[in-house]
Amino acid sequence: MAKNVLIIGAGGVAQVVAHKVAQNAKEFGALHIASRTVSKAEQIITGIREKGHTVEFTAHSLDAMDSKVVASLIRQIDAKIVINVGSAFVNMTVLQGCIDTGAAYLDTAIHEDPAKVCETPPWYGNYEWKRREACEKAGITAILGVGFDPGVVNAYARLAEDEYFDKVDSIDIVDINAGSHGRWFATNFDPEINFREFTGTVYSWQKGAWQENKMFEVGREWDLPVVGKQTAYLSGHDEVHSLSARYKDADVRFWMGFGAHYINVFTVLQNLGLLSEKPVTTAEGLEVVPLKLVKAVLPDPSSLAADYEGKTCIGDLVKGTQDGKPGEVFIYNVADHKDAFNEVGSQGISYTAGVPPVAAAILVARGIWDVKKMANVEDLPARPFLELLGDLGLPTRVIDATGDHPL
Amino acid sequence: MAKNVLIIGAGGVAQVVAHKVAQNAKEFGALHIASRTVSKAEQIITGIREKGHTVEFTAHSLDAMDSKVVASLIRQIDAKIVINVGSAFVNMTVLQGCIDTGAAYLDTAIHEDPAKVCETPPWYGNYEWKRREACEKAGITAILGVGFDPGVVNAYARLAEDEYFDKVDSIDIVDINAGSHGRWFATNFDPEINFREFTGTVYSWQKGAWQENKMFEVGREWDLPVVGKQTAYLSGHDEVHSLSARYKDADVRFWMGFGAHYINVFTVLQNLGLLSEKPVTTAEGLEVVPLKLVKAVLPDPSSLAADYEGKTCIGDLVKGTQDGKPGEVFIYNVADHKDAFNEVGSQGISYTAGVPPVAAAILVARGIWDVKKMANVEDLPARPFLELLGDLGLPTRVIDATGDHPL
Repeated sequence: MAKNVLIIGAGGVAQVVAHKVAQNAKEFGALHIASRTVSKAEQIITGIREKGHTVEFTAHSLDAMDSKVVASLIRQIDAKIVINVGSAFVNMTVLQGCIDTGAAYLDTAIHEDPAKVCETPPWYGNYEWKRREACEKAGITAILGVGFDPGVVNAYARLAEDEYFDKVDSIDIVDINAGSHGRWFATNFDPEINFREFTGTVYSWQKGAWQENKMFEVGREWDLPVVGKQTAYLSGHDEVHSLSARYKDADVRFWMGFGAHYINVFTVLQNLGLLSEKPVTTAEGLEVVPLKLVKAVLPDPSSLAADYEGKTCIGDLVKGTQDGKPGEVFIYNVADHKDAFNEVGSQGISYTAGVPPVAAAILVARGIWDVKKMANVEDLPARPFLELLGDLGLPTRVIDATGDHPL
Repeated sequence: MAKNVLIIGAGGVAQVVAHKVAQNAKEFGALHIASRTVSKAEQIITGIREKGHTVEFTAHSLDAMDSKVVASLIRQIDAKIVINVGSAFVNMTVLQGCIDTGAAYLDTAIHEDPAKVCETPPWYGNYEWKRREACEKAGITAILGVGFDPGVVNAYARLAEDEYFDKVDSIDIVDINAGSHGRWFATNFDPEINFREFTGTVYSWQKGAWQENKMFEVGREWDLPVVGKQTAYLSGHDEVHSLSARYKDADVRFWMGFGAHYINVFTVLQNLGLLSEKPVTTAEGLEVVPLKLVKAVLPDPSSLAADYEGKTCIGDLVKGTQDGKPGEVFIYNVADHKDAFNEVGSQGISYTAGVPPVAAAILVARGIWDVKKMANVEDLPARPFLELLGDLGLPTRVIDATGDHPL
């Protein structure tokens, strides 16, 4: 029987997810989308209708911070697959709602406690992995971090393991957005989450241990397909925490590209204390969390889509040995902002994050990834996922000893 | 009979004023200081006692936004001179309190409406000058803008008029702070007022009309005594508005020195909308005025004093003709941050702003400036003021055809 899907969230990524499940409606039963502000969910459905999709799609108002409320909605609409692309603050309550009702759970980012920034690694170990036993016991499929990064890049690592190396020595994930939104400054997704990635210690897994650096302390120039030479900086990122568990003997690093302008704005805000999540009190006695005000003055990331131009390149440089011989492979995707907008009305960053959970949901619906336990993406077979992603608009390419070719 | 003095405000400038009236207590009757937060006023008095001054000094709590409350305090303590160095938002209510009670009024900055930034010129014409008749009728001495700039620089212009030129062609006021506070970023006085000076249109008076520029649009390198070569930018400033009324045929410009770092931080905050005085609403529904939050995260200007090093140079380059011959004169003061701190516990910016109103108060007390009407500083004889300022710690120097010498 076709499985009903519930999308939680109504931001830029949720919009892509909603369009993509509508495009692939034959894989699912009834479609639902829930958000704190129901009008945002309704607006997404309107956009889908405007693209000519006549599938059944229902909007709901939901307080996703309350697991009982989540479970109640899941039961009410008989959802079998929940794609959580709401704020990273709601992961644990939505997951609990799934455990309590038997629905499969998918998300795209690690859980965050609004009061804590950059907790000590491993981040999954602080929250999600504590529910592993509960998932296994209840027979719940929970796929963590199945966006692009984390998500597709974890599958790239797994593909390298499966098809290139019997020993993986290093995984360098590189994320370059060479696009331009034409605004003076904007973040590509929720500023609150975006900045929190960079305000704390940068953790990387090197030589079998957590290494600590400051943001923008370690930069490296990369020469990548399509986007060319780009400087990227060692950054903390979800997938470093799960990949380092599977690839204990490999170095696992995440590199994010930043232009000088972004770094300057970030540095000013950071040094002034405006990225703090701790409230300050104004002379008038008003308690304000600086980061929440910064979010309020910045452009809404979803508003950037129409003017966004250029391409992203995200990939894994994996080094290892096969039959004792050292080698390397670069597995990557190039996405185009304008193409994304034309297809689903979103910019490329939301597109690359929103398509993969739909691919995962299809694999769950087909039973291929319906593993009845909690898994990170590298724990699952990579090829069916990457091949399906190619069909859904995110083709994988590989640079190996034979040259630069499609997967 | 010695005149009782009431200081309104308890910030960095008020602290200097309080120390200076205490040092010159023989010129006055009882000394009083009033602030919204009485503990800040009490703290200032404690600092004065620690310097060994045993003069009668009383702290009061005051809501200076209510002219009736101001008048009531003036009557209660029989104040004859009110030195208003509170927020620029309270000028009109404090002035009204003086008009209603017969006390002399002195301030150091133009009135500002908290809801408006950079109104159209002339700023004095928008508020203070509308009370000219009321002052004359009531026989009230009201001396506007008698800090350093505005204030001393207006007297410098008047000195040039009195002693150098029968026709003034241009007045270029240059304000350079070559000191360093050692913080990553800080404003030298209330950030709310500081930034408001630069967020709107820059008005200058040139060729007999108001000229409009953007902040940091017009820069010029100056080579000044002691502080050397410094870049200063055409800026809007109070004194341009009053001097242009007296010197209609002269160009009147104000130049403020800024380093690249200040400009960068300002530009980031400004472009992000964080210097706006208009409230924005956060995702959580909280209404916040961005500028008030920025103020809350920046260092308290008075906290900079202990570490402040280096010097300020503020002066007027006045060009004109005397007996048909063109000439120019640069009239200026150099102040030292450490000297200021050692004397009164404040940094040089507060010191240069706080000493002049005390000199003016002494001249009012002595009858020399007790003009029984509203006046800007250039309307009053300059020499007694500048000579007294020299005695109080802000000596004037002059560069003219005979070289660089004390006034």
